[in-house]
Amino acid sequence: MTHPKLFIPGPTEVAPEVLAAQTRPMVGHRSQDFADLFYHILPRLKQVLLTNQHVYITASSGTGLQETAVRNAVRSGHKVLNMVAGAFADRWHQVSVSNGKDAVRVDIAWGQPIRPEDVDAALDAGGFDAVTIVHNETSTGVMSDIEAIARLVREKYPDVLILVDAVSSASGVPIPFDEWRLDMLLTSSQKAFALPPGLAFAAVSDRMLARAKEVPHRGWYFDLLTLEKYLAAGKTTPATPAISLLYALDVQLDRILAEGLENRWARHETCMEMTHAWARKHGFELFPAPGYESRTVTCVRNTREIDVPAMIAFARERNMVIGNGYGSLKNQTFRIAHMGELGPEDMTALFAVLDEFLL
Amino acid sequence: MTHPKLFIPGPTEVAPEVLAAQTRPMVGHRSQDFADLFYHILPRLKQVLLTNQHVYITASSGTGLQETAVRNAVRSGHKVLNMVAGAFADRWHQVSVSNGKDAVRVDIAWGQPIRPEDVDAALDAGGFDAVTIVHNETSTGVMSDIEAIARLVREKYPDVLILVDAVSSASGVPIPFDEWRLDMLLTSSQKAFALPPGLAFAAVSDRMLARAKEVPHRGWYFDLLTLEKYLAAGKTTPATPAISLLYALDVQLDRILAEGLENRWARHETCMEMTHAWARKHGFELFPAPGYESRTVTCVRNTREIDVPAMIAFARERNMVIGNGYGSLKNQTFRIAHMGELGPEDMTALFAVLDEFLL
Repeated sequence: MTHPKLFIPGPTEVAPEVLAAQTRPMVGHRSQDFADLFYHILPRLKQVLLTNQHVYITASSGTGLQETAVRNAVRSGHKVLNMVAGAFADRWHQVSVSNGKDAVRVDIAWGQPIRPEDVDAALDAGGFDAVTIVHNETSTGVMSDIEAIARLVREKYPDVLILVDAVSSASGVPIPFDEWRLDMLLTSSQKAFALPPGLAFAAVSDRMLARAKEVPHRGWYFDLLTLEKYLAAGKTTPATPAISLLYALDVQLDRILAEGLENRWARHETCMEMTHAWARKHGFELFPAPGYESRTVTCVRNTREIDVPAMIAFARERNMVIGNGYGSLKNQTFRIAHMGELGPEDMTALFAVLDEFLL
Repeated sequence: MTHPKLFIPGPTEVAPEVLAAQTRPMVGHRSQDFADLFYHILPRLKQVLLTNQHVYITASSGTGLQETAVRNAVRSGHKVLNMVAGAFADRWHQVSVSNGKDAVRVDIAWGQPIRPEDVDAALDAGGFDAVTIVHNETSTGVMSDIEAIARLVREKYPDVLILVDAVSSASGVPIPFDEWRLDMLLTSSQKAFALPPGLAFAAVSDRMLARAKEVPHRGWYFDLLTLEKYLAAGKTTPATPAISLLYALDVQLDRILAEGLENRWARHETCMEMTHAWARKHGFELFPAPGYESRTVTCVRNTREIDVPAMIAFARERNMVIGNGYGSLKNQTFRIAHMGELGPEDMTALFAVLDEFLL
């Protein structure tokens, strides 16, 4: 029996051979066998995250690395700027506040991107150690222009660290970490990487590590300097790693690089274009401001006022899972993800089913 | 080909059907299917952790829950007492300090247990919010008498929360959480639970949740009140859960309860006795103070001055993995774990190999 295929913005479909990789027997995490696996994973992960600087892997969800970011980047007596235009940016603000950081929140209307001028206006007050930006808001289907924001911040606010949540975009969309001079990019396994959840990945700049040295009380589990100390000494990770998930990552990195990053990005873009065309064909508008549509998940505005739960149920009976709108956007929008393993043939199959419901 | 069998104190052997459970396809973690799984897991986990109070599951290693414990239990202006008689208690002290807690460290000689009188002497100074104790130190093979310590603390220091690391003992040894009036017991998946690493479990008292309400800046990822809020509202976990590992936990809980907790504890004790008898037969002493030997891992003192690395290599060539001593105890001790899936027949097979080396 085929299982229900996931067109939701995470967790996403995982390839059978990647699922199967998890069944390899355990090894000691302080053994040479494990070190060989770990240090074979790292350079390929750097390739995918487009960095020659530092890459860390934690046994956590992406939210754990949101905590890492603010605890390591923001000194006492300095502020963090949280740009909020969706649910996951809102969470990052909560994470900042709950860790005792002096967090300034700037709200942007949902559906709009974070724009450089809004960041500029907020940072202009001075006293900031870092700015947090969600690259791709799965709650709104909006993708912000990180390149433009980073250029502004690097030029005008050289001491402000740029912290980017790319949970639902990294590996599906090019985010040249080093070239854009970002300071931390965090992502997790269960979105465009198409792995089971439970791992999170971070690209980290030299600048960010230098800053962490000036921040006391960074905690232990998510402390970048502890992660770096173990990694640099050949001791892999400070805490016990999620071995079976790393087996899966090992296989998936090979698959990602075999496809080729450019091909992978192009496939995501193609699926997005197909989804836009399908939505337009049915007279739906898109929720995001034009030009800022996510390449991994499309948030469709329910301009036709269809019965969204009925369409979701109809698809579900045909073994396809799409998402309703997030929170207060429920029924006013619905979401179709096109990331990870999904390709044009999957989108075609999905649209055939949705057409059947709509026509 | 059979894989090398692990007699190290974690990760431990995982049963083939538990490994296989990880290959089930992903489901949305906000779906009813996932909620059904999660709320089917919880009551069985409570059974195994011997509590009717609260149980939480995090996507992390056990160290993550060490952080949870101190961040939720210790108020500013109050102290935490870290009793340290091994490597993992030492880590808990580092975790306390790195989270900005006023941490008082009491060192006990490695090989000795934590004794009630030592806890009493330290708490007598006053001003403590909590005491941290590692139940079973995998670095020394020592198991402390938590019942006696808890009785002392509950009677004499009613406001001091009792935080217990049972990473390498829970489910292999009875630790009646409610009866002993503990406040937090933390453990992880890859030891006596015999699961892959990546999940951590906590039993938490009502008292502990009440205390957390008085502690600001508990963070987000490891905040007990956030975990409780989601769990109580039927929303499972705040952060994305490690779904494939929960599939494995689901299967393993059935296996644990099918064996029966008493039978499981007895099996661990039998394997310990076999290991003690084997060590004595060869003229080895045990490292722990008599009466405090761990029931899940035996730390053997190398009184015969054998070539420990040679014995480990000899066993490894025969597909069996045992552990050297921890840190400075390397070669002066070696460790044989007897937890999780291991039974008397496994120990017999191991000792046949080690006998061949020694005789």
